[in-house]
Amino acid sequence: MKRIKCIISYDGTHFAGYQVQPNKRTVQGELEQTLAKMHKGEMVRVAASGRTDAGVHAYGQVIHFDSSLLLPAERWQKALNALLPDDIVVRDVQEVDFSFHARFSATAKEYRYKIRTAEEQDVFSRYYCYHYPYALDIEAIKHALNAVKGTHDFTSFCSAKTEIEDRVRTIYEAEAISSHNGLEFRFVGNGFLYNMVRILVGTILEIGQGKREADCIPSILQGKDRRLAGKTAPPHGLYLWNVYYDN
Amino acid sequence: MKRIKCIISYDGTHFAGYQVQPNKRTVQGELEQTLAKMHKGEMVRVAASGRTDAGVHAYGQVIHFDSSLLLPAERWQKALNALLPDDIVVRDVQEVDFSFHARFSATAKEYRYKIRTAEEQDVFSRYYCYHYPYALDIEAIKHALNAVKGTHDFTSFCSAKTEIEDRVRTIYEAEAISSHNGLEFRFVGNGFLYNMVRILVGTILEIGQGKREADCIPSILQGKDRRLAGKTAPPHGLYLWNVYYDN
Repeated sequence: MKRIKCIISYDGTHFAGYQVQPNKRTVQGELEQTLAKMHKGEMVRVAASGRTDAGVHAYGQVIHFDSSLLLPAERWQKALNALLPDDIVVRDVQEVDFSFHARFSATAKEYRYKIRTAEEQDVFSRYYCYHYPYALDIEAIKHALNAVKGTHDFTSFCSAKTEIEDRVRTIYEAEAISSHNGLEFRFVGNGFLYNMVRILVGTILEIGQGKREADCIPSILQGKDRRLAGKTAPPHGLYLWNVYYDN
Repeated sequence: MKRIKCIISYDGTHFAGYQVQPNKRTVQGELEQTLAKMHKGEMVRVAASGRTDAGVHAYGQVIHFDSSLLLPAERWQKALNALLPDDIVVRDVQEVDFSFHARFSATAKEYRYKIRTAEEQDVFSRYYCYHYPYALDIEAIKHALNAVKGTHDFTSFCSAKTEIEDRVRTIYEAEAISSHNGLEFRFVGNGFLYNMVRILVGTILEIGQGKREADCIPSILQGKDRRLAGKTAPPHGLYLWNVYYDN
């Protein structure tokens, strides 16, 4: 047996999310079907760094699985890319120690969120960024992002359905980079709660538009109530960009 | 009656091309169905600057139609965008004189062709540029493009199925712009034959890769034989970018 780690990209548009669900097309489902084909029908369970929702993309999702096939890493990559549907791409394959686990070994994750602010609709990016055609105060956005950094209880910034008790997370980096037609948010943290990036982005866009004060983040955090924060930004602007592991 | 001119974008991925065909999803078909809805079921014929093939995109296709509806241009744009499928976007609407014709009034057209040369597959651009992961000699490409400019008989650079007798066209601009991950070709001319841009790009990529000499274009043109030119590049890198009219 070997443990295989893969970095994968996927276009979330036509998936009902990462995790297997009966009668739905999922990323995990496609990966496991492809691995079953390579293992004479035998089930190979895939573990990921975490789930992504329907419509959410991944540039650098990390998965692992165990296999008795003796293929060098490059052959794994070629075989998987040849068999997987064209909305999943394996970017890198490595053989790893059995102590590695895609989820439990992760030390940090990076998410990005892409916004198009240009007024005109763009047909080519309609599934790949959120069209938010409003003038945004970038200084107010940067001020708000600064208040997101650090260790906080993010109860106000996760779905009210979140069952996890411990909602304290540490955000190492929270920044917004202006681009030609819009804005890209970048968040690096030791963990993210359900819908957390989308609620942060939704709230910060309201700040950027002047609907909320630039210094409102600390009081929203303190209130520990989802209703204090802004709307949940739509899934199609969000990318799981990178998963970090020690060395 | 009013004549309405629209500039439209479409993502060609899920269309069997621009022109109406029985039992196929086409851009013209979607436009005419939408206009019929707005005209109580009455057929409204749409004329375009020209066709595009299955998988080919448009950033700036131009169409016109005649309507008895008395809507200001902005209302036309909103109504059409609300009713059209999300892979067609109306970028601009203008009321024009009846002497205007989307096809016959056009004085020039611009096509662009996008290439990704980075080795790694990119899942997000798989339908929007041609993945050609080879080192390209940009100087050789520019030399070849220079030879394309001017007035030539393009018989060697159109599909052997072309029925039009007069294959003389004038290319005003032919250039390649290097970008972060690849290359963008740009062609402006008074007209383009069937598959002409895709055959030009296919041939010039072979030059860029060193499979053909940089100065081979004049002799290919002189031979007036499709078999002398290179492969037809795939449709999904191609964009009808702009249609030019006097004033």
